[in-house]
Amino acid sequence: MDIINKHKVKNAAIQLAALSSADKNEILKRIADNLIANKALISTVNLRDVARAEDDGLPAPVIKRLRMDERKAEAAAEGIYSLMSLDDPAGKLIVETELDAGLTLRKVSCPIGVIGVIFESRPDALVQIACLCLKSGNAVILKGGSEAAETNRLLTQLISGASTAAPSAAQGALQDKAQGASPAAAQAFAPEGWINQLETRAEINEILRMDDCVDLLIPRGSNAFVKYIMENTRIPVIGHSDGLCHCYVDAAANLEKAVRVVKDSKTQYAAVCNATETLLVHKDAAPWYLPAIWDALNGGETSPGTGGPDAPAVSLRGCAETLRILSGYPVETAEESDWGAEYLDYILSVKVVNSVDEAIDHINRYGSRHTDAIVTEDADAARTFFQYVDSANVYHNCSTRFSDGFRYGFGAEVGVSTSKIHARGPVGLEGLVTYKYLLSGDGHTVDEYERGVKTFIHQKK
Amino acid sequence: MDIINKHKVKNAAIQLAALSSADKNEILKRIADNLIANKALISTVNLRDVARAEDDGLPAPVIKRLRMDERKAEAAAEGIYSLMSLDDPAGKLIVETELDAGLTLRKVSCPIGVIGVIFESRPDALVQIACLCLKSGNAVILKGGSEAAETNRLLTQLISGASTAAPSAAQGALQDKAQGASPAAAQAFAPEGWINQLETRAEINEILRMDDCVDLLIPRGSNAFVKYIMENTRIPVIGHSDGLCHCYVDAAANLEKAVRVVKDSKTQYAAVCNATETLLVHKDAAPWYLPAIWDALNGGETSPGTGGPDAPAVSLRGCAETLRILSGYPVETAEESDWGAEYLDYILSVKVVNSVDEAIDHINRYGSRHTDAIVTEDADAARTFFQYVDSANVYHNCSTRFSDGFRYGFGAEVGVSTSKIHARGPVGLEGLVTYKYLLSGDGHTVDEYERGVKTFIHQKK
Repeated sequence: MDIINKHKVKNAAIQLAALSSADKNEILKRIADNLIANKALISTVNLRDVARAEDDGLPAPVIKRLRMDERKAEAAAEGIYSLMSLDDPAGKLIVETELDAGLTLRKVSCPIGVIGVIFESRPDALVQIACLCLKSGNAVILKGGSEAAETNRLLTQLISGASTAAPSAAQGALQDKAQGASPAAAQAFAPEGWINQLETRAEINEILRMDDCVDLLIPRGSNAFVKYIMENTRIPVIGHSDGLCHCYVDAAANLEKAVRVVKDSKTQYAAVCNATETLLVHKDAAPWYLPAIWDALNGGETSPGTGGPDAPAVSLRGCAETLRILSGYPVETAEESDWGAEYLDYILSVKVVNSVDEAIDHINRYGSRHTDAIVTEDADAARTFFQYVDSANVYHNCSTRFSDGFRYGFGAEVGVSTSKIHARGPVGLEGLVTYKYLLSGDGHTVDEYERGVKTFIHQKK
Repeated sequence: MDIINKHKVKNAAIQLAALSSADKNEILKRIADNLIANKALISTVNLRDVARAEDDGLPAPVIKRLRMDERKAEAAAEGIYSLMSLDDPAGKLIVETELDAGLTLRKVSCPIGVIGVIFESRPDALVQIACLCLKSGNAVILKGGSEAAETNRLLTQLISGASTAAPSAAQGALQDKAQGASPAAAQAFAPEGWINQLETRAEINEILRMDDCVDLLIPRGSNAFVKYIMENTRIPVIGHSDGLCHCYVDAAANLEKAVRVVKDSKTQYAAVCNATETLLVHKDAAPWYLPAIWDALNGGETSPGTGGPDAPAVSLRGCAETLRILSGYPVETAEESDWGAEYLDYILSVKVVNSVDEAIDHINRYGSRHTDAIVTEDADAARTFFQYVDSANVYHNCSTRFSDGFRYGFGAEVGVSTSKIHARGPVGLEGLVTYKYLLSGDGHTVDEYERGVKTFIHQKK
């Protein structure tokens, strides 16, 4: 007995892919309206999940992520309204080639099919991902954290009820409050079965084996969680398990910029994947730069950058040369393991290098191909860094914290990928489509070309 | 002890990625020249592999694929010359966005890194794939069939010798014969270690585990072989294990076109992945179409299409309705298993369907998402088929045999992919590149945007 009706989900994906952009936006609007109409209910139901989590003694940060009050429900709806304004990534003509007279090849973007999304406690992630899938025309199988079970169930009902043709009780509330809806006009509907929810942890392992149904997996959660997913499925995964980012301060760095950028990269939000974990400093810059960055990261007076006086102090773990230059400062000794450590905390490993090449080698060896930055006024050094650093995001004179779909202008983010295949770096709606080739002829056979009766012209249109 | 120096290969990939298009073409030309200069040697060495294969009693088709005479060596070199004329897929600016004043994001195509290629007996595949990797800037690990061991070793030496800075004895021969080379000019070289060869079958399983080094696998060979690779690695794979293609003859089909297209799809080359295995016929067309296609596939007089009088007869396996209409004809009964069978032979399963929707359902259920065609004069039916058939290649009024990189005008083909992620359908050089994001700033920090001091403009250039 399968946990899900695979044939129904696959069929829903095929039906959903045929909806027009206007229809999908109309459905998205109904979903957003439905969330707003039911925001009080969402908050109430969510409080039951929160109470149970508190009884179970879950840690405070988990409970904080779990909470979905009316304001958060509104924010989720606003996210949907702004999603409506984005370009539909599917149905675009990518390239058209006349292979021969009357034989025309079109490469057209289309939805991937069935997307499996596995996420931890934040219930608003369910809304965001489900709507990204709908906007791009993909069916979705969702597995949220069990601590948010009641909230997730309600959100799925609200989304499903507002989008499919069989109105649920939840949609009833919508009908009374819908703004601007014309009851006389024929409504667009998503096919039943386009959104599916799994509830038990055991079902995660089921999903991982559903490579005959699920075309792509998007895990959202801790590194260990994402790594587990990646290591236990043959379904393609969008995501990253590690974010070991570097800043390299070159000999030709501007002091003020180098302090600002590194401080922001390390402290603006230390617990996330695009925070910097290792600082590399050119040997010629180290004598003047290391004391300055130590001060900046520890609230000293020379701190010109971001974070403000309340920012926690950052512990430095230095190589031998760093320790020598910062003798007198409280700096720990970096072990070999520090170069591969993703602290996600106010800790920074520091290494003095002899050249930009040595910095690049270090990054390509220890990094996770996520985001790495050089600070320099030397355009050649920046060019070399751009060329040779083998990461999804390579930066010059700016903070590693910029690697994010919203900051890149994608409007909505599926996640950040360190895979090199398909989607790399911050992934927006484009990561949720693939393409198909459509060839139109008039009785054309290959035999005529093989025998030389006809010849391809391969004319791009 | 690793079978390959991973650090060296990865580093070679990074160096290779930095070569200009002109440099890569110069190196490709030296490789092609070197093959031509050594074509007699290639043929001689290859004959030893052939003799051993004959002693070992290998089947004739294997020995035929194994053979690499002077003509085939020249053809391989000509393939390289035409590869030189193709666009470099790497280093292209895909999109450029000004995130804010002085903060510019560029999305640039770049090589994937290290490609593992595992192929069966044809040694010319080694040359083709190695040069596709070089052209796109990727390092390559090659594992050919053990029956071609001596030929593969020589070809690798000739490619490596002509491309890297350490001239081999093989390259000596080149220096005397090179056409148009300017000995005075500084030569471009590929980094040592960009091309690597494995020789034993046990090493295949090693490669499959090298997900810390190999970024992409391209298996070339039988379905069973490709399936084995796909099921035993976590490295992304480009390829397809099944090619179960369909032709659907609609009620509004033109008889002559429907016969031509289906005959070409089935018989033009029956043993390949894009040959048609199942024929679906609309119930209204079946009475006049089925007798005509039976004749055409069995050399009867009404055969207007391709193949000629020598084409072998095609055995039909029909559904109950097919058997009824073709009563009197020698048609076998199709079992349920026939709808999922990739015959790769002169056998065709035939089913009568009630509608284009039923045909589409059948294709999406039993097909392998490779290539499927509709024959119809009804534009609406064609549109429906294009929209709902969930395959990499969907055709109207032309043979399924067109799904091929050369016929699509890609110039060179890596393989055909039925995966929906990354590369789909026939894969040319574009399947061997990914992209990276390059962000240039002037000391920009995320903190300023989070605090609202600055605002993103997200201006596409």
